[in-house]
Amino acid sequence: MSSGARGRFIVFEGGDGSGKSTAAAAVAARLEAAGQRVVLTREPGGTPAGEAIRALLHHRLSPWAELFAFLAARAELVSTVIRPALEGGATVICDRFAPSTFAYQVHARGLDPVVVRTANRAAAGGLEPDLVVYLDIDPAAGLARKAGEGPAVATGQEGLEFHRKVREGYLLQARDDPARWAVIDASLPAERVAELALERVLRALR
Amino acid sequence: MSSGARGRFIVFEGGDGSGKSTAAAAVAARLEAAGQRVVLTREPGGTPAGEAIRALLHHRLSPWAELFAFLAARAELVSTVIRPALEGGATVICDRFAPSTFAYQVHARGLDPVVVRTANRAAAGGLEPDLVVYLDIDPAAGLARKAGEGPAVATGQEGLEFHRKVREGYLLQARDDPARWAVIDASLPAERVAELALERVLRALR
Repeated sequence: MSSGARGRFIVFEGGDGSGKSTAAAAVAARLEAAGQRVVLTREPGGTPAGEAIRALLHHRLSPWAELFAFLAARAELVSTVIRPALEGGATVICDRFAPSTFAYQVHARGLDPVVVRTANRAAAGGLEPDLVVYLDIDPAAGLARKAGEGPAVATGQEGLEFHRKVREGYLLQARDDPARWAVIDASLPAERVAELALERVLRALR
Repeated sequence: MSSGARGRFIVFEGGDGSGKSTAAAAVAARLEAAGQRVVLTREPGGTPAGEAIRALLHHRLSPWAELFAFLAARAELVSTVIRPALEGGATVICDRFAPSTFAYQVHARGLDPVVVRTANRAAAGGLEPDLVVYLDIDPAAGLARKAGEGPAVATGQEGLEFHRKVREGYLLQARDDPARWAVIDASLPAERVAELALERVLRALR
């Protein structure tokens, strides 16, 4: 449900070290090379205010403060970047979106799903992805991969158990909405992951 | 309803230029001079993350992004400052809290009150003020007073009509909850305003 938007809204999701940012950039580059108008963005971030919130999230916030900081970044990104791009007919590829909130803040941290759903709907202005590309990886492997890159936003200090719950949160969402979710084995080589992701994105753009 | 907290939670509210920060500080000083343990804080702000959010709000954010940024600051302030202080038996005086959200974001900006109420309850962890001291001033007079002080957080570029709606939003809340709201004429001299505020606060502390 793109709420009247003309372009397609593609979200890349995955745990830390899943390679989703690399895959999202590779898919965006391939689409652009094929002559498509693509806007590649990321969350939290993608706007001056959003990047400030991203920096803020390196503080250790209380769970609800963290949730609302993410939603502030989302609201700003949707209204100033994603929605205008979709209305202009571009394909928008976003590195993380609402599925992260339900995997991390709701499923792993345990925030009330009803409250989060209500608030998230307001933040996203009702916008939902046309396709969620989820790069699935065993958290132990993902964290090992990530180890050289420094801590991830707001999750860098969490243990393996937390990341196992995050993965479970993603897989439950994928199971509940198989038409919209593409689950890709992120333990494959990066080129193969990007290729599989591109296939699914091209199918969604047809 | 202080949700089991032992100290009292006093909120100072008012439009820009109402003198609420001055009055809150004066009342806090008087209580401390009388031997009370007082925590004086402000919103947004009051924590490292909250002060970063306060700085962020000088960006011009979309309405929902602004709302969620305020709620992130509130959640952090309640869980790390206000709640522990109340549980330790201190009187907490806070310069702005949820009533600002309902006056500015709901009544003046028009955000959905049901969504905001749900999200605000989560941010505040169910905490509500024992007393709201509202310094009421004609917006034209308040803005004239404020003119020398630079723009207020997130409202500095708004016109008189917006501030009239804010005032209306405050007065409606006061009317709906007269036992908990004290409305003080903020056009009086600052010393008199502080005196009237102190009287009401002392009554709430008895």
